[in-house]
Amino acid sequence: MNTIDNITYDEISIGQTATYSKTLTEDDLVLFATVSGDVNPVHLDAEFAATTMFKERIGHGAWTGSIISAALALELPGPGTVYLGQNLSFRAPVKVGDTITVNLEVTNKNDRKNYVTLDTVAINQDGTTVAKGSAEVIAPTEKLSLPKPELPPISIG
Amino acid sequence: MNTIDNITYDEISIGQTATYSKTLTEDDLVLFATVSGDVNPVHLDAEFAATTMFKERIGHGAWTGSIISAALALELPGPGTVYLGQNLSFRAPVKVGDTITVNLEVTNKNDRKNYVTLDTVAINQDGTTVAKGSAEVIAPTEKLSLPKPELPPISIG
Repeated sequence: MNTIDNITYDEISIGQTATYSKTLTEDDLVLFATVSGDVNPVHLDAEFAATTMFKERIGHGAWTGSIISAALALELPGPGTVYLGQNLSFRAPVKVGDTITVNLEVTNKNDRKNYVTLDTVAINQDGTTVAKGSAEVIAPTEKLSLPKPELPPISIG
Repeated sequence: MNTIDNITYDEISIGQTATYSKTLTEDDLVLFATVSGDVNPVHLDAEFAATTMFKERIGHGAWTGSIISAALALELPGPGTVYLGQNLSFRAPVKVGDTITVNLEVTNKNDRKNYVTLDTVAINQDGTTVAKGSAEVIAPTEKLSLPKPELPPISIG
């Protein structure tokens, strides 16, 4: 069975890394607009987007934020993580078809509270940094290996 | 026609506020898991979530981030805004059925680059702060009033 496994506070070391990748699809633009309510036409209307500085539809900045949080939730530390905070600066647009890789690196541990700080950098398939910042989490203390939930199919339109 | 209107850099004053609200639905949990890839069962599996410190399924922290970005994109400054950065600390869980209100307040303007800094606070229907932080944007210089895109219906399952 497909599982999601975590890395506990004690197993985490400074300098430890993990990666997570996702490709932005046209459907993602519609789904993210639906779930956030952000229907700004720069994300949805190809004709309008062509008139902007971006020249084409771009992903929501917060979508990049969402895949950084997915990296923390699934890869490092994984299930049981409590997300305390995130800072992020957006450096370059994400276009439909771009594959974004999130690189996580542990930069600090605080034994008193099981806090872990990680650098969070998102790069596209050309190596361009699209967003960077850092996250603070409470790492899990208990080992977890959970069945990976299957998502139902979604149809648009 | 339903339009999305912006507030230009020159029209923005320090202390100016705007709000934006959204209610977290069960569908949002599935859609956000799909679009981010974060299928952590604390968001999707009611039985598993009951065993966690949260006692029930909770929204993705990044969902709260996404509605803050929607507030910036739709309300203040609105269309034409370039999202430069966000910092956010997560203070309390968001449960299904919670209505989250994002309160924006302009705290700084930088005339040289049309940068605007805003406090971003998300509260639930009970007045509990679920997330707070600040955003930096480039405010638009050109007045825009755009037709609000209609989203296609989405079906799950």
